[in-house]
Amino acid sequence: MPTPPTLAAGSVGSVDTQYLDLPESVRLDCGRELGPVRVAYETYGTLSALRDNVILVCHALSGDAHAAGFAKTPPESGTRDGFAAEGRDGTAGKGLGWWDGMIGPGKAFDTDRYFVVSTNILGGCRGTTGPSSIDPATGAPFGASFPVITVADMVRTQRAFLDVLGIERLAAVAGGSLGGMQAMQWAILYPDQVDAVVAIASTHALHAQGVAWNSIARDSIMRDPAWQEGQYYGTGRAPDAGMGVARMVGHITYLSGPALTDRFGRKLQFADDIRYTITEPEFEVESYLRHQAESFVKRFDANTYLYTSRALTYFDLAREHGNGSLTRALENYAARTLLIAFSSDWLYPPQASADIEEALRALGKPVEYHIIDAPYGHDCFLLEEARQTPIIQRFLQRTL
Amino acid sequence: MPTPPTLAAGSVGSVDTQYLDLPESVRLDCGRELGPVRVAYETYGTLSALRDNVILVCHALSGDAHAAGFAKTPPESGTRDGFAAEGRDGTAGKGLGWWDGMIGPGKAFDTDRYFVVSTNILGGCRGTTGPSSIDPATGAPFGASFPVITVADMVRTQRAFLDVLGIERLAAVAGGSLGGMQAMQWAILYPDQVDAVVAIASTHALHAQGVAWNSIARDSIMRDPAWQEGQYYGTGRAPDAGMGVARMVGHITYLSGPALTDRFGRKLQFADDIRYTITEPEFEVESYLRHQAESFVKRFDANTYLYTSRALTYFDLAREHGNGSLTRALENYAARTLLIAFSSDWLYPPQASADIEEALRALGKPVEYHIIDAPYGHDCFLLEEARQTPIIQRFLQRTL
Repeated sequence: MPTPPTLAAGSVGSVDTQYLDLPESVRLDCGRELGPVRVAYETYGTLSALRDNVILVCHALSGDAHAAGFAKTPPESGTRDGFAAEGRDGTAGKGLGWWDGMIGPGKAFDTDRYFVVSTNILGGCRGTTGPSSIDPATGAPFGASFPVITVADMVRTQRAFLDVLGIERLAAVAGGSLGGMQAMQWAILYPDQVDAVVAIASTHALHAQGVAWNSIARDSIMRDPAWQEGQYYGTGRAPDAGMGVARMVGHITYLSGPALTDRFGRKLQFADDIRYTITEPEFEVESYLRHQAESFVKRFDANTYLYTSRALTYFDLAREHGNGSLTRALENYAARTLLIAFSSDWLYPPQASADIEEALRALGKPVEYHIIDAPYGHDCFLLEEARQTPIIQRFLQRTL
Repeated sequence: MPTPPTLAAGSVGSVDTQYLDLPESVRLDCGRELGPVRVAYETYGTLSALRDNVILVCHALSGDAHAAGFAKTPPESGTRDGFAAEGRDGTAGKGLGWWDGMIGPGKAFDTDRYFVVSTNILGGCRGTTGPSSIDPATGAPFGASFPVITVADMVRTQRAFLDVLGIERLAAVAGGSLGGMQAMQWAILYPDQVDAVVAIASTHALHAQGVAWNSIARDSIMRDPAWQEGQYYGTGRAPDAGMGVARMVGHITYLSGPALTDRFGRKLQFADDIRYTITEPEFEVESYLRHQAESFVKRFDANTYLYTSRALTYFDLAREHGNGSLTRALENYAARTLLIAFSSDWLYPPQASADIEEALRALGKPVEYHIIDAPYGHDCFLLEEARQTPIIQRFLQRTL
């Protein structure tokens, strides 16, 4: 029997995800209206009387609203992703939030000072309306008839959700990867409502290789016959095989080559020798990948993967808001911005953050950019808490 | 109607693949014996009276015996792979050999001087005995009952094949990627029969990330229900969906990120705007990948992919021949060695060649190592003919 987790100093404690139905439908970039929309969310800390201490944290592709603390009802497997889920810190399976190291009393996003809000994104599969939700027009799950969504649609949904909570301004919007895209999108859509943006391991537009990896992941899901053109709910079959491959591809792109070598090298499953098998794992990294695939398909919906991957591939500030120019896209941007990138991140490489910094500087907007020299690749935004924390704390102190 | 190809200066002209049945079975590393074994091969140039001008070229994962010239019966699609197949030079679909730029009169492997021999590897699907061949014990295709093979098994098969041709010594063994592994394996298994090794974009053992990519590719094939535990021949179904994904993964690992950006960037299929679709390609790189997958599955057998990928993952000179030490593995090695690596190759990075150079130098063996600064990634070994040629020519002149 596992020992119950002890609360670390600085934990927000046990939390339950809550749910809220938006009073109006959401108008989407594709032209469709979606409603009713339910939003899954968690909050940590206390809203100030002036409602001026709100930080919205936005999650990445496979995250959810459970960003900090222990889930009162632990999910089937830990919600911390990637390398982190496997536990340098042994948190896997204990229901710790995906950014627990960053959110809590005295942490980077200090809940003694801030009211931190986290929502599951539109299109999600962890409580917010998405492809697995019931389409009121048919009484059946949307499946692939769910409208194609964008990062801006996710942000509009968060805006409508905060309206219900009576929150007009954000002291900061923060996130890593797709979460950082949402943060920047906030400052563009609602320039007078966002004081600060913290965009970590993110980009203004994925590079060609990133577009390719996402395309391969989606194709892997859609080529699985169990996908059934997206209408697999209730059939007893789901495209777990294809999504497992998608997850394995994603997983390797989240890590750096040297980190993989450092952790696995060419270590064999059975140290004595190879066993001459095609079907069974021979190298430790092979069984690690299979384990990652298995645990992911238990907790994630394949259609949400497709829609979210599509949204983050579409995301392109210059195309969407600047007629091809990133500088023009950021013209109305008023938030102070903190950019953090990691030296070994080849999926969201430092150059993308440097491009954003350059554009903001050219416009005379306040921006601060740090490259953290760390070996774990894109997953650093989930792992390098100790080094991100002082940077974020200093930045936020200057903002308020 | 396409214009018929004109013969480039230096072409070996039209060639037919030939077939030879080995007189004896091949004893494999796994302990099994395999026979009868048929070998598909091509030769270019003329064997000298002394039989001392033979160069064996070894192909990579998806290659075949057709290394140079025009196939008399053009295959369904070009045999040149990767970027090359898409044609910087417009050769796709014309049946040009995969290393045509390197083999021919006056070329790197000069057929005016050398008798160049190329075979399809053991386990292949282009004429040499492999999983799609008939198992004489059952009268049905081997499928997944084909024995698991190693790079050394491929080399032993080539050795037995050359015996039939009456060729004892090799002036050189040459190849890129898996082909380079075979070349080094030759010099270890038959140190007194190989004068020179040319190993390009190769390694003594794949790094952890390379092991991972291969594992994902194989899993993608085996997770396709049409794989049917490897016994799909004659069922009217083949794991094309899974192998298509494997090919897309492979393809991206063969190219560099900057080369992809240079060629595709974020160019949309329809320049006006996105169309909000999950299922259809929106970016040019997305439709390019699908095209690569489609053309590959038409010409390649999924089980051969599995077996070959497993063999190149197992390959580890230090483990197999040096009790963990690369230097010890190369102790009996007597061939002069030319190593070429490409700066942008992240799948078979220059460091691997540097390790081999260092080990050979420590043993006082003659070795020459060049890094070519070129942008295309691993595929450079198929593309950078102009820059490899003088290096190889100089090296071979000194060898004879």
